[in-house]
Amino acid sequence: MILWYDFPMKKKIKVGLIGLGTVGSGVFKTLRNFDYIEVSKIAVRDINKPRNIEGLDKSLLTDNPYDVVNDPEIDIVAELIGGLDPAYDLITTAMKNGKHIVTANKELLAKRGEELFSTADEYNRVILYEAAIAGGIPLIMPIKTILAGNKINKIEAIVNGTTNYILTKMDVQGASYEDVLKEAQQLGYAEADPTGDVEGFDAAYKIATLSTITFKKRIKIEKIYREGITKIRSQDMKAANDLGYKIKLIASGKIDENGKADVRVHPMLVSKKSTLAHIDYVTNAVSLTGHPVGSITLSGPGAGEFPTASSVVGDILAISAELGTSDYILPMMRCRHAENADMTDISETENKYYMSINAKNAMGVIGKIGNICADNNISLASIVQKCVSDDNTADITVITEIANEKAMQNAVKLIEQDGNKVNSLIRVQV
Amino acid sequence: MILWYDFPMKKKIKVGLIGLGTVGSGVFKTLRNFDYIEVSKIAVRDINKPRNIEGLDKSLLTDNPYDVVNDPEIDIVAELIGGLDPAYDLITTAMKNGKHIVTANKELLAKRGEELFSTADEYNRVILYEAAIAGGIPLIMPIKTILAGNKINKIEAIVNGTTNYILTKMDVQGASYEDVLKEAQQLGYAEADPTGDVEGFDAAYKIATLSTITFKKRIKIEKIYREGITKIRSQDMKAANDLGYKIKLIASGKIDENGKADVRVHPMLVSKKSTLAHIDYVTNAVSLTGHPVGSITLSGPGAGEFPTASSVVGDILAISAELGTSDYILPMMRCRHAENADMTDISETENKYYMSINAKNAMGVIGKIGNICADNNISLASIVQKCVSDDNTADITVITEIANEKAMQNAVKLIEQDGNKVNSLIRVQV
Repeated sequence: MILWYDFPMKKKIKVGLIGLGTVGSGVFKTLRNFDYIEVSKIAVRDINKPRNIEGLDKSLLTDNPYDVVNDPEIDIVAELIGGLDPAYDLITTAMKNGKHIVTANKELLAKRGEELFSTADEYNRVILYEAAIAGGIPLIMPIKTILAGNKINKIEAIVNGTTNYILTKMDVQGASYEDVLKEAQQLGYAEADPTGDVEGFDAAYKIATLSTITFKKRIKIEKIYREGITKIRSQDMKAANDLGYKIKLIASGKIDENGKADVRVHPMLVSKKSTLAHIDYVTNAVSLTGHPVGSITLSGPGAGEFPTASSVVGDILAISAELGTSDYILPMMRCRHAENADMTDISETENKYYMSINAKNAMGVIGKIGNICADNNISLASIVQKCVSDDNTADITVITEIANEKAMQNAVKLIEQDGNKVNSLIRVQV
Repeated sequence: MILWYDFPMKKKIKVGLIGLGTVGSGVFKTLRNFDYIEVSKIAVRDINKPRNIEGLDKSLLTDNPYDVVNDPEIDIVAELIGGLDPAYDLITTAMKNGKHIVTANKELLAKRGEELFSTADEYNRVILYEAAIAGGIPLIMPIKTILAGNKINKIEAIVNGTTNYILTKMDVQGASYEDVLKEAQQLGYAEADPTGDVEGFDAAYKIATLSTITFKKRIKIEKIYREGITKIRSQDMKAANDLGYKIKLIASGKIDENGKADVRVHPMLVSKKSTLAHIDYVTNAVSLTGHPVGSITLSGPGAGEFPTASSVVGDILAISAELGTSDYILPMMRCRHAENADMTDISETENKYYMSINAKNAMGVIGKIGNICADNNISLASIVQKCVSDDNTADITVITEIANEKAMQNAVKLIEQDGNKVNSLIRVQV
């Protein structure tokens, strides 16, 4: 067990999970790293289903989720089953029983958020839901904490991985919507009935909640204009490209100075100069614009067992820190890390390199450079002799495979001793 | 005064500012939006300097910063002067006097963070410093809160706006380092003595603190390998481009399974497929990779009066919320926003449009489409008739200027009534 936190917890926090599917498993596995957290009960549909989860004590399982929300020992309930019923009643009952809530349920928040937050208020409980919007991307907590000084008036977001995957594939392959959808279904990126994703319902749930907390006014899901991607043609992709754009399914929200909101989900041509144009495949991204911050963009994985678990666990830890450390304000924001890191010297590191050489005599020089590199265990990924100048010198550009820094510096010295000039040695991202 | 927060504060929080330069002014102006915060004292170098700051009561000014840190009424001190001395002693004295600290001082944190955080621990105070790294980008608070469930083992970041501006300009214009530096100095993006930026010192300060809190081991500033951008040539930019890369000054950190860290600042070729390659001019970006989240990238403005103020104010509000609401856990994470937003219907919105038309008869069709658009107050930004097919139809691609949705839908109807087929109508990002 690793105690990643650096503040002393006064008590163990008991967590109940409702659901042990993809997300639930990721949450369970991640919580095991924190020895002040105990997962003390888990509601599943079928207790006897074989589950390959290391460290799972089967006696914690129950097939009655009310066993979790009615357990007087439990501090925090994480609802990870999705859908409206029975999730709504389970969360409400849990709050009435004094539990704080963590949920990834975007549909429930969009459709019944108002009632849920009223109940939370009445019973002085918190509902956290970082995982419900844009998976692993830090979004809700930053908006509500470090960005709290801002009046954010514009959101543009890619929050549905399935449609972004389809649009990216259509763009890259020049393929039709129908063909790419079929492929996405085979790969598990799209469901057998893809309606919720491709018609924009999923994105609409997410922008409903995101714009509500960002604009601090309730945005009703039924008032959001929604258009899916089913009519996008590969010809449109190509035409957009020629004009300097990519086509993305954008969930957007704006609010004007009079508090009038314009919230929608529809395909959009986005300029290749914008960050969103480069968000490809299942990646999600959210751009926020406001004052005083200006424009920021947060991007990362929008779904999946572990990214979603990151957000669910982050929410659980935030509540746990507050419940377990009554003497402190902002316990998570403390800095201790007293131990100095053991550091690798640059000479011991392994890197790829870009090297630009001006070679005195073009004849046979590539062979010599190749030999020097080989003698130093440096493999070359590419070598280009671009132009021979009037003075009988040649400009040679080399990209290496991963090599040792000390060996590379030695090779540079030998190449220069051979009468050449190494103009640049720049490391390459691996 | 707007109360942007939605939780009841029991008391007014008193804030003292040290410094009223660019950042200090932005902080002062932003804090005025919060009626439960009172800026009660401000230390400046020259009390009599003319300052054009609305709402500034000159009686709050003092030229002795110890008046701020010794004021028994003040709850939070924001240190915004930078440098080691007297900032170190001021912060230390303030903590000993019971104040919490917000600072934007990257050099001080990198060089004396260990002592400062020990003092904070001893006196049970918090030091928050979101503004010290990557300006307005939410970074420190997300790492320490919502990402707390992760073991992050890799950081790649563009955290110096000056060098990123210079490298972007070199790339776009094909200009030399020297020429672009001169231009950047004239525009105020680079200082008269640019050493701190162009030799990577500023980025090293930032990655020292960022890697320390991310890896939870202290990274000593003097052990960070550092290389600046002064030797990058325009030829390297061009060669990198041809090979599918951009050159960026990257502050990076890695930590291996044995806790050995590799932290550096140097130029790097980054693949055009990566998000960092598209972070241009003074924008900053930080990519974090770990488990369970995977890879996320946070980007936005890295400096400037207002972006920096966003982070300083966010930190001040986080401390204030805890000091002012003793009955609550996580007061900032509560959701209320009971009021429904007034919503704009899609038919009333203004948008740019991409329209793809298959025209029955190519003869004169562009003129007719132009007339229909003009009759509906729709200006055209571009119109391209790409190819005429064998069946005597033409494919026409139109991009409009900003137009009314209802008018656009009407134009589509009229274009179709004229015997053409509108295959696609997609909105364009404005």
